[in-house]
Amino acid sequence: MLTKNKIKHVQSLKRSKFRKEYNEFVVEGEKIVSELIASDHKVKSVFALDSWIQNNQDLIERNQLKTERISTKELERISFLKMPNKALAVVESPSYNLKECCTFDDLTIVLDTIQDPGNLGAIIRTADWYGIKNIVCSHETVDVYNPKVVQSTMGSILRVKVHYTDLKDFFNNLVPKNLEVYGALLEGNNLYEEKLITNSILVIGNESKGISSNIEQYLTSKLRIPSVKNSKVESLNASVAAAILCAEFRRKDFI
Amino acid sequence: MLTKNKIKHVQSLKRSKFRKEYNEFVVEGEKIVSELIASDHKVKSVFALDSWIQNNQDLIERNQLKTERISTKELERISFLKMPNKALAVVESPSYNLKECCTFDDLTIVLDTIQDPGNLGAIIRTADWYGIKNIVCSHETVDVYNPKVVQSTMGSILRVKVHYTDLKDFFNNLVPKNLEVYGALLEGNNLYEEKLITNSILVIGNESKGISSNIEQYLTSKLRIPSVKNSKVESLNASVAAAILCAEFRRKDFI
Repeated sequence: MLTKNKIKHVQSLKRSKFRKEYNEFVVEGEKIVSELIASDHKVKSVFALDSWIQNNQDLIERNQLKTERISTKELERISFLKMPNKALAVVESPSYNLKECCTFDDLTIVLDTIQDPGNLGAIIRTADWYGIKNIVCSHETVDVYNPKVVQSTMGSILRVKVHYTDLKDFFNNLVPKNLEVYGALLEGNNLYEEKLITNSILVIGNESKGISSNIEQYLTSKLRIPSVKNSKVESLNASVAAAILCAEFRRKDFI
Repeated sequence: MLTKNKIKHVQSLKRSKFRKEYNEFVVEGEKIVSELIASDHKVKSVFALDSWIQNNQDLIERNQLKTERISTKELERISFLKMPNKALAVVESPSYNLKECCTFDDLTIVLDTIQDPGNLGAIIRTADWYGIKNIVCSHETVDVYNPKVVQSTMGSILRVKVHYTDLKDFFNNLVPKNLEVYGALLEGNNLYEEKLITNSILVIGNESKGISSNIEQYLTSKLRIPSVKNSKVESLNASVAAAILCAEFRRKDFI
């Protein structure tokens, strides 16, 4: 039975304050909830329609999951989506050890205050596509467990480790001194004329302000995505810029 | 004086139904409204703060614009934005002649039912960055004059021509028979192993369903953006995929 308290608890996780207080977030959707259960994440509870439970019986038993059968109406009451999709799970927010995770043997993405949930979600999805395992965000970056971010990652949030830290501390204390640190800047060098080293860092700046001046000092190479001559566009969308750069870093592996 | 009727009229343009009825849409923001006035678009009225009017006096006079000075409070009442930004304009929706515009001497983007406003906005912005002048959309694609689309184009909506048509008619009657028609498909050929011809068409499919089967028949070449081996990601965000493809089409011009 879906009690008022349970509804209230799930609904509270829409807000960053309560996600932090309970150290939990919500994952929704038929496929992503199945993927979630099969992952290393700690699932606190699952609310799902009968059809989903039937289809996932094995998975539920193998993982000894607390699953609550609910009606379509009840799902609508707890869902954050306009079109609720069969299952909703409450998950413990994982805590990753930044130092252990970031070994810099492959590309690491650093986000300097990305604020749009859709952009963060798309960047996580792109990172996953290109096998990038770690994204290091400034504290001012939008919360990765914001429902809109979770949804737009399309499941990639379960595979890419997203860290929050003070970026100055990160560069001063964790990044090896000889590591190449690339940054996407409008006044950088033509991306296609630079030699791109894969075990490096790629910094993407804020949607309107770009890379902040106190982070720019750590860049060893500034990259510009060329536009056509006389283009009147000031910049690309942040997730689009990140994707074009990631594709170019990986390009040589696909030829 | 900002009358109730004016407020009601502007507010009505949030809805597709009234945008079509009045053949108007809303553009907001200090910079984009200035750009709009300097463009070929027919501006019906401008509502702006005194500071904006002072800064744009020349532009207003040169274009004999109907400008209404409003207060911050009044701007908040008519704005579609959470953070209103100095000026709002009501604009006549331009009508482009598809046949005259699409001469196929450069890349043309075709959108087969893109539904997310942020995706359409980002694609228009990317097209503008790469000098792509025409985007041809299926009737089911989200309305380009949806306020979220307009905002996320960051002004590129003033420069890129976005057409709506029946895509089957378009391919049957307007596209030359020998034209290369590329499509982004998960089961396509490795993008980097294909010879990309610039005077061609690039088709991007729907966020969840991809390119529909009745459009797939027109493709002469199927392109796949390679992912790393063993990637568990099914697909990239549609605007991200469009951007990686456009960048690759233009890459040779930047080397």
